[in-house]
Amino acid sequence: MIDISIAGASGYTGLELIRLLLKHPEVRFSTLTSETYAGKSIAEVFPSLEGHIDHKLVPLSENIGNTCHILFLALPHTTGMKWMPQFLASPCKVIDLSADFRIKSAEIFEQWYHTPHLQPDLLPKAEYGLPEFHRNAIQSARLVANPGCYPTSVILGLAPLIIEGLVNLDSLIADSKSGVSGAGRKASLSTQYSECNEGVSPYGLGNHRHTPEIEQELTRLANRDLNISFSPHLIPMTRGMESTLYAKLKKEISTSALQEIYQRFYQGEPFVRILKPGSFARTGNVVYSNYCDIGVTVDSRTGRAIITSALDNLIKGASGQAVQNMNIMQGFGERTGLDFPAIFP
Amino acid sequence: MIDISIAGASGYTGLELIRLLLKHPEVRFSTLTSETYAGKSIAEVFPSLEGHIDHKLVPLSENIGNTCHILFLALPHTTGMKWMPQFLASPCKVIDLSADFRIKSAEIFEQWYHTPHLQPDLLPKAEYGLPEFHRNAIQSARLVANPGCYPTSVILGLAPLIIEGLVNLDSLIADSKSGVSGAGRKASLSTQYSECNEGVSPYGLGNHRHTPEIEQELTRLANRDLNISFSPHLIPMTRGMESTLYAKLKKEISTSALQEIYQRFYQGEPFVRILKPGSFARTGNVVYSNYCDIGVTVDSRTGRAIITSALDNLIKGASGQAVQNMNIMQGFGERTGLDFPAIFP
Amino acid sequence: MIDISIAGASGYTGLELIRLLLKHPEVRFSTLTSETYAGKSIAEVFPSLEGHIDHKLVPLSENIGNTCHILFLALPHTTGMKWMPQFLASPCKVIDLSADFRIKSAEIFEQWYHTPHLQPDLLPKAEYGLPEFHRNAIQSARLVANPGCYPTSVILGLAPLIIEGLVNLDSLIADSKSGVSGAGRKASLSTQYSECNEGVSPYGLGNHRHTPEIEQELTRLANRDLNISFSPHLIPMTRGMESTLYAKLKKEISTSALQEIYQRFYQGEPFVRILKPGSFARTGNVVYSNYCDIGVTVDSRTGRAIITSALDNLIKGASGQAVQNMNIMQGFGERTGLDFPAIFP
Amino acid sequence: MIDISIAGASGYTGLELIRLLLKHPEVRFSTLTSETYAGKSIAEVFPSLEGHIDHKLVPLSENIGNTCHILFLALPHTTGMKWMPQFLASPCKVIDLSADFRIKSAEIFEQWYHTPHLQPDLLPKAEYGLPEFHRNAIQSARLVANPGCYPTSVILGLAPLIIEGLVNLDSLIADSKSGVSGAGRKASLSTQYSECNEGVSPYGLGNHRHTPEIEQELTRLANRDLNISFSPHLIPMTRGMESTLYAKLKKEISTSALQEIYQRFYQGEPFVRILKPGSFARTGNVVYSNYCDIGVTVDSRTGRAIITSALDNLIKGASGQAVQNMNIMQGFGERTGLDFPAIFP
Repeated sequence: MIDISIAGASGYTGLELIRLLLKHPEVRFSTLTSETYAGKSIAEVFPSLEGHIDHKLVPLSENIGNTCHILFLALPHTTGMKWMPQFLASPCKVIDLSADFRIKSAEIFEQWYHTPHLQPDLLPKAEYGLPEFHRNAIQSARLVANPGCYPTSVILGLAPLIIEGLVNLDSLIADSKSGVSGAGRKASLSTQYSECNEGVSPYGLGNHRHTPEIEQELTRLANRDLNISFSPHLIPMTRGMESTLYAKLKKEISTSALQEIYQRFYQGEPFVRILKPGSFARTGNVVYSNYCDIGVTVDSRTGRAIITSALDNLIKGASGQAVQNMNIMQGFGERTGLDFPAIFP
Repeated sequence: MIDISIAGASGYTGLELIRLLLKHPEVRFSTLTSETYAGKSIAEVFPSLEGHIDHKLVPLSENIGNTCHILFLALPHTTGMKWMPQFLASPCKVIDLSADFRIKSAEIFEQWYHTPHLQPDLLPKAEYGLPEFHRNAIQSARLVANPGCYPTSVILGLAPLIIEGLVNLDSLIADSKSGVSGAGRKASLSTQYSECNEGVSPYGLGNHRHTPEIEQELTRLANRDLNISFSPHLIPMTRGMESTLYAKLKKEISTSALQEIYQRFYQGEPFVRILKPGSFARTGNVVYSNYCDIGVTVDSRTGRAIITSALDNLIKGASGQAVQNMNIMQGFGERTGLDFPAIFP
Repeated sequence: MIDISIAGASGYTGLELIRLLLKHPEVRFSTLTSETYAGKSIAEVFPSLEGHIDHKLVPLSENIGNTCHILFLALPHTTGMKWMPQFLASPCKVIDLSADFRIKSAEIFEQWYHTPHLQPDLLPKAEYGLPEFHRNAIQSARLVANPGCYPTSVILGLAPLIIEGLVNLDSLIADSKSGVSGAGRKASLSTQYSECNEGVSPYGLGNHRHTPEIEQELTRLANRDLNISFSPHLIPMTRGMESTLYAKLKKEISTSALQEIYQRFYQGEPFVRILKPGSFARTGNVVYSNYCDIGVTVDSRTGRAIITSALDNLIKGASGQAVQNMNIMQGFGERTGLDFPAIFP
Repeated sequence: MIDISIAGASGYTGLELIRLLLKHPEVRFSTLTSETYAGKSIAEVFPSLEGHIDHKLVPLSENIGNTCHILFLALPHTTGMKWMPQFLASPCKVIDLSADFRIKSAEIFEQWYHTPHLQPDLLPKAEYGLPEFHRNAIQSARLVANPGCYPTSVILGLAPLIIEGLVNLDSLIADSKSGVSGAGRKASLSTQYSECNEGVSPYGLGNHRHTPEIEQELTRLANRDLNISFSPHLIPMTRGMESTLYAKLKKEISTSALQEIYQRFYQGEPFVRILKPGSFARTGNVVYSNYCDIGVTVDSRTGRAIITSALDNLIKGASGQAVQNMNIMQGFGERTGLDFPAIFP
């Protein structure tokens, strides 16, 4: 039994961490922080939790790491990094759900996030928390940078094509569709119900902040420089994310053969499911679970692989993956606390 | 560890039973039936279940009860009753999620369901499976008639007012709003996405089939005849149900005093949560859980109690309540397999 | 051809006024105001208008009334009333879509809106702009208080029962369901997409500000004091509002007979449609139109009339009704600019 | 004033034709057909139309063309073509909203639609009804094949890149997202509310029937063979369609320069709006209008043009475009009956 704390417990990823960890047999809650709701109990903020947890919310303090084994940072980007040295000076390990330590280069971080990186010296210590590719490094890491939701769906979908050398690296395109909860829990005009209901809105085409994260990790897997066109779209649903991925095949291959390559590639992975040939990944089959479903298609007319990848943006795209990383870091079974199916309908 | 079977596994309540029971520590699956999908595996019908269960679906047979301890009937109304004698002749106990054995009078059943009741002799053997009021009888029942979703929300909300004698019995009104999943899983024009999205549709006002069920049970609690105006509405969401309940108070009482009465009334109930005075029950706080939230308000200007009651129509309104009944019948802890919070957002 | 100005053009009711008046053959636009977006063109704020109007937004000034025949105030409650004397000193007529001049008693206004009324002397000059009951007074009014969306749906639904003396005046209940656009266009946590999608939320039961407005107008029609229980609910759709109305009948009457009374009552009304006996009012049949559909049912088992009333909250519940009032005030045909059917699906 | 008839009036495109033509100053209704609802009035089928039209529905007959100037066929694919010779033998002109006469080659039609083409001889007589490219031919056509919704959004978006020779023709990708009304009005399990709400579903990747239509028309514009990867996705909204289009630029160009090319290209087009550089096309700005909005972006990092194109699938993607074609065929002003802005929110 370990103690865990959550900084930023009153946001959606914080709430989802609480909900998942409530049913995790190996953890108990230490500190939950919130600046906005400090003094209230978490069940007052989220009545859905009534009867399950009643911790009082407190403001974040730099010594939070002294009273827990794992500290989850579920804070807005750039707000947690100022105290990272203090967190790491404590005995705890840190899983940071923000983007602060995902980009290895402080320069690239500053270019895309338009703010200086406060802890460039700590960047080498952070491991990118995508278990499917960095399980060993995560196991021994003190600081895990939990991946973004879009990068998780795109990297898992494209990795086999890239690692197996099947496609031209200058042909990569990711067209992603996300539910609105990805925008977080804050009052904003653009994510008001009436503003985004019943409409699809492309945004950040060509300059979304998840682009360098995707490119960094795919480059690492390919061992060769590459770039990608990444196009996110907001669609009218609360949860779920689907990426349709395009890449030019170097040579002809059938859908079945490509699907087998994917199946072999992810053999044994607890949270990646490769669909039958001809099936496409639908968010309806993964929401509320930690799965990423991947559908494999070859468009033989155009010589492209078209991969569909679906996950729950708050679970495999955020809090579920963070729990998976915790399981790895602590030596728990990787499915512990995450071993449930999606909910449909 | 007991064996359970589900007749009608390819509908929404069947699926929800499977999903809940997969995480129940005391059960394992015996037989899953489906006429439409017989021969397929359940995970082919519902890919959300992939990796968790792979039972082959078979047609329903009259001797299904021989190979399980509990048989759940998740069939459309009037399709399961023909074999009820055979089911009860086997060693299993039956939890029937349809309406077939909820109405004690075959005559009233036939009047509202417009079809003859095939097993009037068995009606006295069926216990109405609302644990909050019939826990003891359920414990020893061979056949439990699992309540309808609307009746569960209305009865739980009104019972304290009626049992405590606080209101005029001729003043009862239930205005209920339901998500679309309550209509079940079948191709129908009226529940097509484009037909019911972005609109609210009252239906069955004054003649919905859940009316006699509500009246029968409230009459039983009141020990006096009563009737109710019951008005269901279809609203554009998949899950969730809210009932706003009106009753004329016999004498003045404050909201706080009435809320305390409710709190005392449901003291110790594992799945009923009484909200603070001035809070209203919202489906967002109960969906995907087995809770029924109840908000208590006195409209002192008009002398009415206005009660709001919210639940998940597929869980506390159907499959979760069925599992709760199973727990009672088998002597398991009543929260076993149901001890999780709602999911928000 | 008259000149019209709109104060508060960058809100939803302002936008809807623009959209409707663009197709009105008798008006042209003078001034559009917005504090937030002053300096921008209206089509920059609402790209849906691109190619149709390109007026520059300006801040509201007290002499706006000098350059138009009709001034529409589409401002938040209590922000327009400070300059009402100046507006009325100009040659223009005013149609106020806010609640500021709906309540005849400054005292009652202050009790429900928790702010002093700044122009109690002007209250007698304002006519309540519900054309079905006050057409003549509206015709000669200088200041029309455009009704709230909830009051429009409730008053139109209950009026025949009350005026014809068919029901007990102490038995009135209105259970209303509204789309989210009724909350207006502003960043707010509670109306964020992820907060209110897929859920139904009762709010303001027993103390919503539209209650005194409904009671005032029904009292005026009944010529006798009365009160009502009014329960609004937020449901997950952008537009539309449905009220289910309950009243105890003084004596038995059939649904058909009651429906005929309604039909006769609203004979000749251009925007009230009485449905066939046994049909219920659905928002899907009225959205994007100026109609209010009314369904009439007698629940003979309980002796109640149950009336369903549906309208588009931004049209018959706000901007469309304002245009209807303008047509009456200017002697245009009452359907001018409003003579279009609802849009389905 | 001309007489128009609609075959298939009880589907969504039929209803939308009726709604649009009701406000068209130059037409009156002759015959409305429906097999399913023959004998009923159209307002009984669609109560939204009550008070505006009350034509009785009749079954389709082969001589329907004798009593109208324009016959709209809003029938399911392959059901109208059997009587096309009779229709064309009558004095009327035909606008066919189905796919039957869009594909010029009967062979390709049969390959993608898996059914023989019954009227191969008539294929050369049909003009593809995309006014932006075939206005003159449409003007003199007896039979217009009204384009599909996906093809309209894709062709309008890609045409300038192709005609101006700016991109590699083997690099074309269209990733499209559609609301559910595109599936038409029929009971089907996959488009049940609960099945497709809150989820995104790719479908038909690599083999959707609109692919050959897109390729045929782009080939015609390019005057060179080409193919495209076309990926449709169903998303949870009733109306609207957005296509994100990718093409490799032959040489560097700035977003502004490309946007100017688009603007010049569509100069004077009444229903194509080119957005400012850096803006993306959102369905929320076009729904309920006949506009197609196009956003132009250059992803300079990857050397791609990324074009976003949004329209209302039932209007510019179907019935509105059909009215636009009628206007051209009859010499009416092209905006007649279509000159209204989108509706937001």
